[in-house]
Amino acid sequence: MNNYQEQYDRYRLLVEKALDDFLPLPGEDWPETGIPKHLTEAMRYSLLSGGKRIRPVLLLAAYASYQNDLDAALPFAAAVEMIHTYSLIHDDLPAMDNDDLRRGKPTNHKVFGEGMAVLAGDALLNHAFEIMSASNAKHALKAIHTLACFAGAGGMIAGQTADIMSEGKPADQSMLQYIHRHKTADLLTAPLVMGLILAEAPEESIKQAKIYGRNLGIAFQITDDLLDLQGDPEKTGKAGNRDKELGKLTWPGVVGIDQAKKDVIAAVQTAVEASKAFSGNASFFEILARSIPERVK
Amino acid sequence: MNNYQEQYDRYRLLVEKALDDFLPLPGEDWPETGIPKHLTEAMRYSLLSGGKRIRPVLLLAAYASYQNDLDAALPFAAAVEMIHTYSLIHDDLPAMDNDDLRRGKPTNHKVFGEGMAVLAGDALLNHAFEIMSASNAKHALKAIHTLACFAGAGGMIAGQTADIMSEGKPADQSMLQYIHRHKTADLLTAPLVMGLILAEAPEESIKQAKIYGRNLGIAFQITDDLLDLQGDPEKTGKAGNRDKELGKLTWPGVVGIDQAKKDVIAAVQTAVEASKAFSGNASFFEILARSIPERVK
Repeated sequence: MNNYQEQYDRYRLLVEKALDDFLPLPGEDWPETGIPKHLTEAMRYSLLSGGKRIRPVLLLAAYASYQNDLDAALPFAAAVEMIHTYSLIHDDLPAMDNDDLRRGKPTNHKVFGEGMAVLAGDALLNHAFEIMSASNAKHALKAIHTLACFAGAGGMIAGQTADIMSEGKPADQSMLQYIHRHKTADLLTAPLVMGLILAEAPEESIKQAKIYGRNLGIAFQITDDLLDLQGDPEKTGKAGNRDKELGKLTWPGVVGIDQAKKDVIAAVQTAVEASKAFSGNASFFEILARSIPERVK
Repeated sequence: MNNYQEQYDRYRLLVEKALDDFLPLPGEDWPETGIPKHLTEAMRYSLLSGGKRIRPVLLLAAYASYQNDLDAALPFAAAVEMIHTYSLIHDDLPAMDNDDLRRGKPTNHKVFGEGMAVLAGDALLNHAFEIMSASNAKHALKAIHTLACFAGAGGMIAGQTADIMSEGKPADQSMLQYIHRHKTADLLTAPLVMGLILAEAPEESIKQAKIYGRNLGIAFQITDDLLDLQGDPEKTGKAGNRDKELGKLTWPGVVGIDQAKKDVIAAVQTAVEASKAFSGNASFFEILARSIPERVK
């Protein structure tokens, strides 16, 4: 476990440095080609606000299962976090979830205004592709395509759409599964698959990684729903009971709290079984999956 | 000129078909992996609403300067139009320009709601990269990087940021040049450079194409400002005098109408001189540039 935590922290530090390195710096305001200071500040505000960095850590850990030198994976790890962050900025907008707090800090539009928050999100999404396409990694194009598919209209955005459309509607288990799969699991699966593609891992491991990612996503999302129910802003970094306020579907709301807890355990178990996909790093992925239900104890 | 129009129409038809082909079709609502119908409808509504398709036409025409078979260029042409369309959807939002009409039709958020318009824009931006990264063109990665740079924080979005920040401020010529360069010219230059990269054109032609694109952008934007001043919704497809209403900087507002018209002519002349970049297709680019000031006569 100590070894796990050390490894996680090492990946996380690499990610923090990469995010800072790959982000444009605040420039002067209207030089020929500089980036407006206000825009870089809005991008940096949300991207460099901490967090567990689970998605890019997953990418580095998956890559490390088959390759040693992590440098080639860094732009892709940073890109996944940029996509995750842009989706949070847009989700928090008044037109979407209308959230004032994120990770204990005012949301992007509260600080920079709505128009700028739309643009900062757009810029982070675009920047993810800008830094990946500057890579000369052998499988860069395939990794880019993987992220685009999991993040786009057939992936995360499909989940966000279903989320919006389900507000205030009666509980519907299949819609909720759809939301969990796409809104949450897709952007946890993408970095696993990308890391393995970049590291030239065998096809079978990619198949297993998809099972791992999907179940990690389910476990994560139900755990988040349970935490929101407990309404502890200390643990969630946002106001409690928001889901109920917004009339949002939640897994415990549909199946009950006890069943929801059992479903987390089952998803974790499936993920643990799929951990063997990550060859040299299997135990890291096993411990990571097992750590999720700890949060709601 | 007839030949020019025939050629333009041929490119435009190829683009219309490609846009339709590359867009996801409306699916069922919550199958395992389908895309929500509401999302594909919102994407298709704005993308397939006609228009001159100047950006993707520029890409095909630039490509055709050095290569005959246009198929390999089609995903990239479609991608540029998707990026252009997403930027319009987000620009029209209440948090940005708050426009109700676009190309004579209700804007995306008027039809699908604000939250969906944010997501439809995000999905089109992401989809542009999804279809380009599925290409096996030799220089796909470099073409993707080119579009990301011209569309992102150092390109189009820099211009949109400056546009937002200039509203209601006193006229500032250097800021306005910055807006024109980035908000308008960058997304006209990108397809030219991409087309030439994909067609393996010589470096010098790419340099000239950047001069052409920049001046085409300047001529376009000043012409648009002049049309908005004339306030003819028939010609612009949107409500007249919007710039003044929004307190936006315009070129004729800063330098006067007569000087603005002269500046269009000068930019067109510079573009015409740079047309030789497009080897086998130079006269197409020459006539295209010359056709811009015709709109405000």
